[in-house]
Amino acid sequence: MTASTAAEQALQALRQQLGAAVFTADEVPARNRNDYSGLAPTQPLAMVRPADVEGVAAALRICHAHGIAVVPQGGLTGLCGGARAQSDEIALSLERLVGIEEIDPASATMTVLAGTPLEVVQQAAAAAGFFCPLDLGARGSCAIGGNLSTNAGGNRVIRYGMARDMVLGIEAVLADGTVVSSLNKMIKNNAGFDLKHLFIGSEGTLGIITRTVLRLFPKPASTMVALCAAEDYGTVLKLLTAARNGLGPMLSAFEVMWPDYWDMATQKVRGVRNPFAADGRSYGAYVLVEALGTDPAQDGPHFEAWLARLLEDGTLPNAVVSQSLADEKAFWGVRDACAEFHQLWPGHLAYDIGLPVVNMDEYAVRCKAALSAQLPGCEAVFYGHIGDGNVHIVAYQTGVAAQPKDAADDIIYGLVREYGGTVSAEHGIGTMKRRWLAHARSAEQIALMRTLKAALDPKNILNPGKVI
Amino acid sequence: MTASTAAEQALQALRQQLGAAVFTADEVPARNRNDYSGLAPTQPLAMVRPADVEGVAAALRICHAHGIAVVPQGGLTGLCGGARAQSDEIALSLERLVGIEEIDPASATMTVLAGTPLEVVQQAAAAAGFFCPLDLGARGSCAIGGNLSTNAGGNRVIRYGMARDMVLGIEAVLADGTVVSSLNKMIKNNAGFDLKHLFIGSEGTLGIITRTVLRLFPKPASTMVALCAAEDYGTVLKLLTAARNGLGPMLSAFEVMWPDYWDMATQKVRGVRNPFAADGRSYGAYVLVEALGTDPAQDGPHFEAWLARLLEDGTLPNAVVSQSLADEKAFWGVRDACAEFHQLWPGHLAYDIGLPVVNMDEYAVRCKAALSAQLPGCEAVFYGHIGDGNVHIVAYQTGVAAQPKDAADDIIYGLVREYGGTVSAEHGIGTMKRRWLAHARSAEQIALMRTLKAALDPKNILNPGKVI
Repeated sequence: MTASTAAEQALQALRQQLGAAVFTADEVPARNRNDYSGLAPTQPLAMVRPADVEGVAAALRICHAHGIAVVPQGGLTGLCGGARAQSDEIALSLERLVGIEEIDPASATMTVLAGTPLEVVQQAAAAAGFFCPLDLGARGSCAIGGNLSTNAGGNRVIRYGMARDMVLGIEAVLADGTVVSSLNKMIKNNAGFDLKHLFIGSEGTLGIITRTVLRLFPKPASTMVALCAAEDYGTVLKLLTAARNGLGPMLSAFEVMWPDYWDMATQKVRGVRNPFAADGRSYGAYVLVEALGTDPAQDGPHFEAWLARLLEDGTLPNAVVSQSLADEKAFWGVRDACAEFHQLWPGHLAYDIGLPVVNMDEYAVRCKAALSAQLPGCEAVFYGHIGDGNVHIVAYQTGVAAQPKDAADDIIYGLVREYGGTVSAEHGIGTMKRRWLAHARSAEQIALMRTLKAALDPKNILNPGKVI
Repeated sequence: MTASTAAEQALQALRQQLGAAVFTADEVPARNRNDYSGLAPTQPLAMVRPADVEGVAAALRICHAHGIAVVPQGGLTGLCGGARAQSDEIALSLERLVGIEEIDPASATMTVLAGTPLEVVQQAAAAAGFFCPLDLGARGSCAIGGNLSTNAGGNRVIRYGMARDMVLGIEAVLADGTVVSSLNKMIKNNAGFDLKHLFIGSEGTLGIITRTVLRLFPKPASTMVALCAAEDYGTVLKLLTAARNGLGPMLSAFEVMWPDYWDMATQKVRGVRNPFAADGRSYGAYVLVEALGTDPAQDGPHFEAWLARLLEDGTLPNAVVSQSLADEKAFWGVRDACAEFHQLWPGHLAYDIGLPVVNMDEYAVRCKAALSAQLPGCEAVFYGHIGDGNVHIVAYQTGVAAQPKDAADDIIYGLVREYGGTVSAEHGIGTMKRRWLAHARSAEQIALMRTLKAALDPKNILNPGKVI
């Protein structure tokens, strides 16, 4: 059977089974031809949009039988090309599997279909008196199934963990269409292997997530935010220890901005204020500290007293505490200003790496020097969730026709390897970081990943070419 | 090659490679012939006690080549028979792989060898100004590698999670002796599949854990404990919601004791006090609530005010708050009294099940009635970490020569299946619960577990017959 015959037969079977849920050629909507990776749009063999889990299973059974590759699609907000389907692949969209199926207040859980947008999940949790701490910029568009299959991070990982840590149960469809339902609601369940971890963070290469049971958290009753100036990275580490000990489990964000980032954000992005402008000097590092509490009367004074001690004992040269919602927004505005950097540096290069916390400043210094030495005129700014071991880098070479992606990758990921870091802290691997996987994982680790892939998807039809 | 020839050749190769680390026949120490399961001692083919990871790898390479089964042994405190080696199996003890290799204060991590006792880990964390929240009764004997391979729970899961949630990195040896080292220190690392979850909770059936990187936590600065009386289970659920919202992330234990448990503990176990004795009545349920804070001056008053509101608004009929370390000990003494029940009920049956929180009381009522109807004179008491979905049961039939384990299993696990619960919340499966696995896992889940087992251990030499 030739490839095209197999494809034609698969399409025929899909149309027979799923009817109007199958789109081919020009019918494939523009949104299903790409993700947020910035790569060129594709023309998938077809886009299939089943109405339910049975439809997902049927589509996989057919594609498995005919050896046709399937690329799962959620909200299509991924940055690494993990949801792009090529011309010989079926795009399988989960966008019709939408809805909150149950909120169980006693177990503090929500059962939800995979295509549901994250923001809908957040709002439903809030309406039931709970809190869904998973949060990222794409909340309005991204789907919870995509968040889990990429093990999304975000700003509050230091307190609540990654997407993985909020999941109690998963239902997934295997390569051959078998539905494995592990919709567990219990925090403790040690009856055999914990299968959900196969599907979380594996970017649809081992199975397609269709439902999940999420753990819900108590709604915070108070929010405290401070912006802190530090003389150097040693002070940042002291502040991190002080925050861990003094704020304990209330600590919900610890966002470090290196000086070049700070200057760019406060001097060049419209609407961003520098609360330390009056100091007439710059500092060695800036830190946004956020805490979420349970007692509005007590938590604010506790937070201010904690910060006052650090100012009094000379640990911090300066710091400001939010006194209003407007302050909170303004403080986070400095950290979120990176979303506007593309206006200043069009087509800039962006990185999401992980490093042991102790090595980050040394890494930043060496990385910046190497970029500027090897790529004349290349500037780079550093910021990140350092309590989680996560640094973001935005780099830009002026006066060139195209940004030097390959050369910058070499420098940035080469140094990551040297420090035992990771080439992807929270954005996944997709296709775009695949060639760098060996910089973060050993040959034995990658071999074991391949063993898993071969065992769960022997025909290699699940999102092939992604991750490994 | 006959089985005995293979065994002889394997022993010869092991002696050649590992010399004095190989023990056979009478040389096998008594402690390596059993665990805490209460089953009869065994006579393993040999016990091998390598001095390092290379020795573990060498032992596995040899056993793999000769098709000889290997049973990993840590502290041998397991309750389900997971570490017992039969006469054709090699017991591979990790007891010489002991030591803290690094504490990284900036990353808040500890790198430790798998045979290290949990208590040594706890003490080293404390000495470095951190807190290791994993804690269980066997802390002095159990090994951290065993804690991870069984995904141990304990009393503070509601706040800190299971053993799994405290692990950032793992080194494990595969069936064929390959060492897969994933000693990651970063909270965020999405470069490919997260392999550590294969080895956590799989009871040595997919690989043998040799090293781990643990996440450390800030040392709590204050401890508050209350014992609460509740009229009924509905009130317990209200208290749970109030604790989640009012204590937030400080909530570290929520231990419910049903009345029969309470009466047995306070009336029949020596040294256990009933703080509600003066009330002259009994209650529908009792709850121990513990919170760990960061500010001794503020946390106590906050906790007492929280509890006072619940007494004032009539949610709780009575409650007492610890005023001293002696009180804390006394309150926990009621919850820990179950360790003495074997003196009152020699050879009693003990269960560790999980259920959706909302169903627990109904389960307890039905289970107790079924036990007493089907097994005349059978008494049962219920208690557990209900915030985690975990209930423990102790059952005892008076006036019989042997406790009716099979019949009680049928009743208890049969009802677990009905409520969608789990047959093992925190003790694992081992050999003793294997026949009940299908009560908690679907055919598709078990088939997927077998796929994993076949992929990682095609010769079935890693702890065969355990879990699946």
